[in-house]
Amino acid sequence: MKKMTVLTGITTTGTPHLGNYVGAIRPAIEASRDENVNSFYFLADFHSLIKCQDPVRVHQSRREVAAAWLALGLDTDRSTFYCQSDIPEIPELTWILTCMTAKGLMNRAHAYKAAVQENEENGSPDPDKGITMGLYSYPILMAADILMFNANVVPVGRDQIQHLEMARDIAQRFNHHFGEHFVLPEARVDESTAVLAGLDGRKMSKSYNNYIPLFAPESALRKMIMKIVTNSQAPEEPKDTEGCALFDMYRAFATPEQVGEMRKKFAAGIGWGHVKQELFEVVNAQLAEPRNRYAELITNPDYIEKVLKQGAEKARTSSRPFLHRIRRAVGIRPLSD
Amino acid sequence: MKKMTVLTGITTTGTPHLGNYVGAIRPAIEASRDENVNSFYFLADFHSLIKCQDPVRVHQSRREVAAAWLALGLDTDRSTFYCQSDIPEIPELTWILTCMTAKGLMNRAHAYKAAVQENEENGSPDPDKGITMGLYSYPILMAADILMFNANVVPVGRDQIQHLEMARDIAQRFNHHFGEHFVLPEARVDESTAVLAGLDGRKMSKSYNNYIPLFAPESALRKMIMKIVTNSQAPEEPKDTEGCALFDMYRAFATPEQVGEMRKKFAAGIGWGHVKQELFEVVNAQLAEPRNRYAELITNPDYIEKVLKQGAEKARTSSRPFLHRIRRAVGIRPLSD
Repeated sequence: MKKMTVLTGITTTGTPHLGNYVGAIRPAIEASRDENVNSFYFLADFHSLIKCQDPVRVHQSRREVAAAWLALGLDTDRSTFYCQSDIPEIPELTWILTCMTAKGLMNRAHAYKAAVQENEENGSPDPDKGITMGLYSYPILMAADILMFNANVVPVGRDQIQHLEMARDIAQRFNHHFGEHFVLPEARVDESTAVLAGLDGRKMSKSYNNYIPLFAPESALRKMIMKIVTNSQAPEEPKDTEGCALFDMYRAFATPEQVGEMRKKFAAGIGWGHVKQELFEVVNAQLAEPRNRYAELITNPDYIEKVLKQGAEKARTSSRPFLHRIRRAVGIRPLSD
Repeated sequence: MKKMTVLTGITTTGTPHLGNYVGAIRPAIEASRDENVNSFYFLADFHSLIKCQDPVRVHQSRREVAAAWLALGLDTDRSTFYCQSDIPEIPELTWILTCMTAKGLMNRAHAYKAAVQENEENGSPDPDKGITMGLYSYPILMAADILMFNANVVPVGRDQIQHLEMARDIAQRFNHHFGEHFVLPEARVDESTAVLAGLDGRKMSKSYNNYIPLFAPESALRKMIMKIVTNSQAPEEPKDTEGCALFDMYRAFATPEQVGEMRKKFAAGIGWGHVKQELFEVVNAQLAEPRNRYAELITNPDYIEKVLKQGAEKARTSSRPFLHRIRRAVGIRPLSD
């Protein structure tokens, strides 16, 4: 039986935080150890150019994000871990797909429509004000990322489902014209992964600036956990675990036994300060070792580079012959053919 | 003094005709022998995918057009002659430029606006009906073609002037953000080159289907020239050379002495049949040898392929280090940097 191919894109802008870790990174890294799946993980640095025009930040983010995933134990033997910009076949496929993409399809993209709406709300006479072609044609690059490796499944957040549908649309149109070359990918939205609240009680997010960085030093981690907002119930009052951000975060890091114990303590009454202390301990227990590995890796960029280049070479054993096939399909082939 | 760089893109769809030859191909080939210019000629096969979804035609056109330019004497030692699709740096630069291109700029492209207007005139509820992202973002690919080799001058037809302005706009925006990396190219519209009329008297054009193929066999060439429409003046009547399609075509192929002779014959009265016979002779004299070379080349695609690959290798001695520089500028560089 043919292995299923799962492809995961990793944003390279911004420092990963606990919410990213619990909601996306940790399950992805666990999946990388699955022998029955052919899994691809890539740093989406071509995507990062859409939003970030600061070369120093683009550069540092690539290094930090790669170091984070390696520190957290991504299995680079079983999976294929590479940088998008190390695969020249991807921009080439992007152009080929661009020629098969209806402009109307891009007009319907949520991110583009949101930007247009913002312009309209601000009374701009030009609905496309400030919108780059990068933002607009982003779904085509994403389709190339996915279709290049014939991914069957792409784990995504809800906001990315539409992009997967677009990748399918583009692939179907291509297959219709040129024969069955592309696998139609499916989005997998894992509703079971935890969504953490941030320091202010809203969803932990870079845009709310309420996040706890994944590799904050131990003392900073403790301080931030201590700052998480709580209600003003007295220590001895029994507390509800339902809808309690601290409890949810605890559950995301603790063993089932620890969670059971904590539930009892909530019922019996426990002070928020004590909850936070126990929370800090479970979070720190899980992150202390990766944090040390991260500190070591980040000072050894040559090693990270080597791992990524090896991954790219591995990826290109697929992308090279596959692009060759796609080029042939559209008519770009050796003249003597 | 640094040599000027001139870059010429060659459309690979459709059979070249006498009008293309006189208006574009012949002057470009003459320019390829200029030692004081650094000239690039490329087959724009990535562009051809925008309009042509027939792989057999895409493939054959590349071969035929390359053979035609070689048969006509393109100097591939002095110039650099390559296929766009053999330069992987081009689609990559295209993406980088895509992130620096305002969507509003593309909205203003004539070709796109014409397509929208056609939809509106046909009463389509969707102004973007049938428009692909290839058509829409074509000017970005063209900018990458030009900026990749730091072309100073791009010989173009009037309809392409806007695309050159767009390439300058994109380059300026990039230079403004990331430093002076791109040369700003200039369009050169040569108003002095002849525009030939076709069989029906309108401008010779593929879209009017009134053209004479460049390498029509001798007998077909004669037949087509004999079919060119004329007025019904009697043979002995003196004739006006001004605005006479036959005379213009004759002038495009004959020596100045021959043109002087013909002018006298027009004044003295000459039958259209005789003009056509003399026209056929000068056209055929200029094309007979290239036609034979073309016939030989077209049966030897391995040779054409070899020439193009050598050209691509030569082009990549520029495009590889230059893309490296552009990648560095936006922040995509070795992690250990």
